Amino acid sequence: MKQALAAARAAVDAGEVPIGAVLMLDGKVIATAANETRTGRDPTAHAEMLVIRRAAEALGQERLERCDLWVTLEPCAMCAGAIAHARIARLYYAAPDPKGGGVEHGARVFDQPTCHHRPEVYSGLGEAESAMLLREFFVARR
Amino acid sequence: MKQALAAARAAVDAGEVPIGAVLMLDGKVIATAANETRTGRDPTAHAEMLVIRRAAEALGQERLERCDLWVTLEPCAMCAGAIAHARIARLYYAAPDPKGGGVEHGARVFDQPTCHHRPEVYSGLGEAESAMLLREFFVARR
Repeated sequence: MKQALAAARAAVDAGEVPIGAVLMLDGKVIATAANETRTGRDPTAHAEMLVIRRAAEALGQERLERCDLWVTLEPCAMCAGAIAHARIARLYYAAPDPKGGGVEHGARVFDQPTCHHRPEVYSGLGEAESAMLLREFFVARR
Repeated sequence: MKQALAAARAAVDAGEVPIGAVLMLDGKVIATAANETRTGRDPTAHAEMLVIRRAAEALGQERLERCDLWVTLEPCAMCAGAIAHARIARLYYAAPDPKGGGVEHGARVFDQPTCHHRPEVYSGLGEAESAMLLREFFVARR
């Protein structure tokens, strides 16, 4: 989670919302990403989406079974859907997102009968630092 | 929808699930895509995701306001989330997807308070042909 938070901090310098993600397999980092929606002019370029795509490319496979995804904010419905499609084994997220989350809020993607894979979900590790990064970013932009 | 169905048919030859999508602005086609999860080894490469990314790149902007998305199957939660993030104005889909859909089934992404943009949604046009393409594909793979 420290590496995911470092990626989130780096995103601030690029004017991006500070959210970072790391994908691991067998204790090794396979891919790292931060939010790139503005710089990439891509509405789908959330940290989770990018780290999943990069890891799939690095491993040469569509499914990321046995992989762990670490991300600094609760994934939205789009990202939760991607996590299910990728068959990720464990999801760790730092801060909950009552306004836009799709795991424990809103769409609750993994709890639906239309969801064909549910990762183990753990949250809270690094929550204070992630929340502070986001708060400082949005205060500075006002 | 005819162009989306044509893209879906073409996907079969590549061994992909036959789902196609077209993105339009002011009556002009901006991008076309079909499912590429297998060939691209990318679990996020649904037709809707690809057509949104291609259109955002073509237009050089993160938001696809005023754009219409035509797709041959009800979008899943991931794709519905991307449609909301992209601020797409109108969504037209051919066939409903009770097993994996995220618009009128399961996560019902657009109906959640965590969803910050809801497109106008129309369905049914081209439903029979889309459903037949999918049925034939899955029968042939058994």
